[in-house]
Amino acid sequence: MKTLASGSVIGMLGGGQLGRMIAMAAAQMGFHTHIYCPYDKNPGEQVTDKLTRESYTDFKALQKFIDDVDVVTYEFENIPLETVNFLTERAVLFPSAKALQISQDRLTEKDFLNNIGLKTAPYAAVSTGRQAVKELEKIGYPAILKTRRFGYDGKGQVIVRSASEVADAFASLGSSQVIIESFINFDLEISVVVARGQDGEIKTFTPFENQHKNHVLDISITPPRLAESLSKEACRMAEKIVAEISYVGVLTVELFISSDEPQLIVNEIAPRVHNSGHLTIEACPTSQFEQHVRAICGLPLGSTQLYAQAVMTNLIGDDILEMNELLRDPKANVHHYGKAEARAGRKMGHVTRLYAFGEKLPL
Amino acid sequence: MKTLASGSVIGMLGGGQLGRMIAMAAAQMGFHTHIYCPYDKNPGEQVTDKLTRESYTDFKALQKFIDDVDVVTYEFENIPLETVNFLTERAVLFPSAKALQISQDRLTEKDFLNNIGLKTAPYAAVSTGRQAVKELEKIGYPAILKTRRFGYDGKGQVIVRSASEVADAFASLGSSQVIIESFINFDLEISVVVARGQDGEIKTFTPFENQHKNHVLDISITPPRLAESLSKEACRMAEKIVAEISYVGVLTVELFISSDEPQLIVNEIAPRVHNSGHLTIEACPTSQFEQHVRAICGLPLGSTQLYAQAVMTNLIGDDILEMNELLRDPKANVHHYGKAEARAGRKMGHVTRLYAFGEKLPL
Repeated sequence: MKTLASGSVIGMLGGGQLGRMIAMAAAQMGFHTHIYCPYDKNPGEQVTDKLTRESYTDFKALQKFIDDVDVVTYEFENIPLETVNFLTERAVLFPSAKALQISQDRLTEKDFLNNIGLKTAPYAAVSTGRQAVKELEKIGYPAILKTRRFGYDGKGQVIVRSASEVADAFASLGSSQVIIESFINFDLEISVVVARGQDGEIKTFTPFENQHKNHVLDISITPPRLAESLSKEACRMAEKIVAEISYVGVLTVELFISSDEPQLIVNEIAPRVHNSGHLTIEACPTSQFEQHVRAICGLPLGSTQLYAQAVMTNLIGDDILEMNELLRDPKANVHHYGKAEARAGRKMGHVTRLYAFGEKLPL
Repeated sequence: MKTLASGSVIGMLGGGQLGRMIAMAAAQMGFHTHIYCPYDKNPGEQVTDKLTRESYTDFKALQKFIDDVDVVTYEFENIPLETVNFLTERAVLFPSAKALQISQDRLTEKDFLNNIGLKTAPYAAVSTGRQAVKELEKIGYPAILKTRRFGYDGKGQVIVRSASEVADAFASLGSSQVIIESFINFDLEISVVVARGQDGEIKTFTPFENQHKNHVLDISITPPRLAESLSKEACRMAEKIVAEISYVGVLTVELFISSDEPQLIVNEIAPRVHNSGHLTIEACPTSQFEQHVRAICGLPLGSTQLYAQAVMTNLIGDDILEMNELLRDPKANVHHYGKAEARAGRKMGHVTRLYAFGEKLPL
């Protein structure tokens, strides 16, 4: 385990709100951050010590970036493969390329999960509409067609309810690398944010119950309104994933609790901090962001105990215009990501409210 | 009241740990920060969006700075008078010059406090050792000689126990602008952090009990171990100060509870956030830093309610070397100010621990 001294520089690919909040946690611990992001006016650049604004495949710029930092991490999983390889060969990269390989491809991800004994929706990889129809005879309708790579927030996926819809649905994805999944009827969606340190120590936050609106996370609640036994089992599943691949950093597992029988089905994993974990900033001694910094810097992991119940609400698009009103709510911890333009569907900020244990949540 | 929209730029004089934590609070609310600080490697520069590294009396650089920002504030009170005047004439300055005029001179400060009916130690202004001896015949020994301007953390002051010590003590201060104060025997020292908004709204944090070591704050505890009636009276005194001068921003009042009779004596005021208020980051919905940002940006003030009891311990000099050990303490919220060199007596970071109400503090 290589422990980085304070003053060391954390290199981070990506300058979105996740990178921004990691940079702020790193600063609180006395680390410097160097953000690498091709986009102008990214939320991270306002709080980082250093910034490189170049393409992820500009290898000259990447080399200069590597030379300046002590460890490289990232805030998003869709990093080009050649960039991952370049970094793996030349830098200390946490989480490692393995986590990216698994999570960048829905087929690899599902194969991995099933291989280690975790349940997913029935699935199959297909490369033509005709093949999809054939596989769907086994899996049944309704089902979902998803591009294997580079999907997020409901993008790159489409539901099909009968064989007649498959050809158009397949064509709409614009890719021949497709996975079909059985549509899961679920009562509840939860996520588990887990961290594994360089020494193998693992700490898991209490799961978050997630509610979506238009395929984008709307509200997260912790503790989830779920039997304690299932909540604990979800944590054990997340811990199994990070142990299995000797993961270093924070990882998120999204799970469904199916309606048919009370069982946990893994939806997907993300090798990073997660929107549902934002409430850990106020609700826990250690936030998911600080936990990630601790893990990648070779420091002991922090406490994930809950101080209170917590509800996080995303501020999407114009929601952010309510900000000054929200500041009047004594319970509201308001976070603004510093994005200049409130485009529809864009994550502009979030609000976390804490409630004493036993207090009724206003939901 | 001029409410600044998110994305506005807060200009701040000073890039120490106070400025750093104000910048981080500003970022969380979607504001940009432009720090103006003459010193290289200042803690604030790692988290600010923009930085000017010039002298406080470089008026050309100051003008450029003003042109870039929407409001000017500061993290320390010892700003040169000509700089204060320059800013007052050309920019929106919160807190205003009046607060600086009062707090930069111990005589002006004591006169102001007594004029509004608040009790201070008996005092007198003197400009020679002989004059000091004469005034001390009235005030009595022991007493303290202090330079009227630019003292902090016990610097610029010396105790005298008899007339024979006065001449040397006076000479050691290296200034003829001196104030003599009666030495107060006190049971407890507390501070009150109060905020006043542009619309006159006032919010006060629960007072902090402060313990010093070598004239530097060592530990702050809240709530203070003090009769509720005195605690409330201290808050009312702080509120009177900010109301009296139509102050905008966060202000700190240091008070003694005298041993002779249970009464509150104002020691000094600081027109800024304060070391003793760092525990508000974890212990309150709104930290002192966010509160300051809200006040100067024309936003409603936030809740100062306590979630729990809290104890803040400063990490001075080599204390910071314990950091990785502290990270193993599940109760410890560790803050590292990013200073490269751990010089003796230097404030390097702090730790805050929360304790449920009713829980016994380990003190």
